[in-house]
Amino acid sequence: MSIKAKWLNKVKWDENGLVPVIAQEVGSNDVLMFAWMNREALSKTVELGEAVYWSRSRKKLWHKGEESGHVQKVHEIRLDCDEDVVLLKVEQADGIACHTGRHSCFFQKFEGDAKNGEWHAVEPVLKDPDEIYK
Amino acid sequence: MSIKAKWLNKVKWDENGLVPVIAQEVGSNDVLMFAWMNREALSKTVELGEAVYWSRSRKKLWHKGEESGHVQKVHEIRLDCDEDVVLLKVEQADGIACHTGRHSCFFQKFEGDAKNGEWHAVEPVLKDPDEIYK
Repeated sequence: MSIKAKWLNKVKWDENGLVPVIAQEVGSNDVLMFAWMNREALSKTVELGEAVYWSRSRKKLWHKGEESGHVQKVHEIRLDCDEDVVLLKVEQADGIACHTGRHSCFFQKFEGDAKNGEWHAVEPVLKDPDEIYK
Repeated sequence: MSIKAKWLNKVKWDENGLVPVIAQEVGSNDVLMFAWMNREALSKTVELGEAVYWSRSRKKLWHKGEESGHVQKVHEIRLDCDEDVVLLKVEQADGIACHTGRHSCFFQKFEGDAKNGEWHAVEPVLKDPDEIYK
């Protein structure tokens, strides 16, 4: 079973058997989203060539795009120096990674100073979430 | 005290009072590293305009570059849709973010398939770590 594959042992899984994952868009290099994977999710990601995460809230594998159609075709997988963070370079279907219908999940920008700061949504909604998840 | 500032309440701190942070290079958009912050670290980051993380291993604030000189000047701070991940857009001193002397911490690339995969270091060491931490 590929979940026991040796290359998966190189990853330092945390106390919950998970590793943080950053998804970055090929070409633009935009950071699209952040999620988690367990051994099975990372193994499946390699098998399918599409991002499969572990949903901590639903406690199950989450093939990104399974509902929205916004799948992520994986071009490259990187591991960091401490071997406890994964970086995926992906092609984002429809250019929409966020469940709010935006390109990237990181659409809230800090403005102000340490005492009086605010977060402002600065990126456009490309598709109505009601349309995405109908 | 700015650690009590209202804008910090928007962040969903985890059970340890931490939030995951991705540092991305302004211009190239390269993902440089991944670390953690607590309220004080994020507040200090805004105050100084330089990245201050929380070192989970040393259990103390870590002003990135305090030893290596490889400070990160912060250009922008973003928060994701779930408000539980922070993205910093930074200018990286000397273009070296990694303690191995590389540009980015994500220098190990996956090669192979789900059964027989390997991780290969594919990015050059720009400066000898013995030089950096002498």
